[in-house]
Amino acid sequence: MGLFSKDIKTMNDLFLHQLRDIYYAEEQIVENLPTMIDKATDPSLKAGFQTHLSETKNQVQRLKQVFQMLGKDAEGEDCESIDGILKEAKHVAGNVADKEVLDAALLASAQAVEHYEICRYGTLIAWAKELNLTSCIPLLEQNLNEEKATDQKLSALGVQRLNRKATAA
Amino acid sequence: MGLFSKDIKTMNDLFLHQLRDIYYAEEQIVENLPTMIDKATDPSLKAGFQTHLSETKNQVQRLKQVFQMLGKDAEGEDCESIDGILKEAKHVAGNVADKEVLDAALLASAQAVEHYEICRYGTLIAWAKELNLTSCIPLLEQNLNEEKATDQKLSALGVQRLNRKATAA
Repeated sequence: MGLFSKDIKTMNDLFLHQLRDIYYAEEQIVENLPTMIDKATDPSLKAGFQTHLSETKNQVQRLKQVFQMLGKDAEGEDCESIDGILKEAKHVAGNVADKEVLDAALLASAQAVEHYEICRYGTLIAWAKELNLTSCIPLLEQNLNEEKATDQKLSALGVQRLNRKATAA
Repeated sequence: MGLFSKDIKTMNDLFLHQLRDIYYAEEQIVENLPTMIDKATDPSLKAGFQTHLSETKNQVQRLKQVFQMLGKDAEGEDCESIDGILKEAKHVAGNVADKEVLDAALLASAQAVEHYEICRYGTLIAWAKELNLTSCIPLLEQNLNEEKATDQKLSALGVQRLNRKATAA
């Protein structure tokens, strides 16, 4: 069980709450990415998701190190945001038959996930600075930079898809 | 009722689905911002939320214009992502007694909302270009630019909060 909001009394509590939230989110992503890899039809998108699955597993390990630095057990806390984003992703992709449309929907869903994570890591880094949790910062920054790079790669894949379409037209 | 995923057959369907999703999201934000304004204790944060409420109402109007351009009724579609993000925001802020911690939590929640919207408008603009829905693009871009500006203002408020704290220490 995570912290209830009534247990959030200090900035340290808030930091821990947010850390548990992103830890849960990363674990959910590890669980959900194989379905997205499976559904994606464009080989570059499939490969991109595959790479991101390996990265996400490393990100979970880095978060475990952050918990260790804080002297806390690594445990997740139900994160309604990521649950909602992933639920919507499944809902939209669930029955789209056309390959191209499905890939576009999967790509958009993956970017929603990345933006959520980019935002949360940004907040965690700001709070870690405020709380002088300096040893945690490089680990959180590594995760943030990977999420940003993934988002950029996804945007580039979107552009590639359009260029292919224009050439085929 | 919105589109079911089984009704998403073309990129135009996907665009319409995403438009209904962000329309629902903006309406939910209009509904939820007054509570955040009420809860915020820092006057700059309160004022920031107030400004964003007016902006969001304008954004809803712009989306209505986009629906009109497409010859479709302006209607929302349940968006599990924004529901999750707002549910988590309420959950976290629900019982935090300390004013400073509450403001930090509210600011973080608002940034999660902004990042979700920035991502979705980015996708909509890319798809509008693909579908040659050129007249819709400036309206979507105006919304996107406002969301980006709000996110930056929120980040600046976070920095101000830290500076005040450092001065007081």
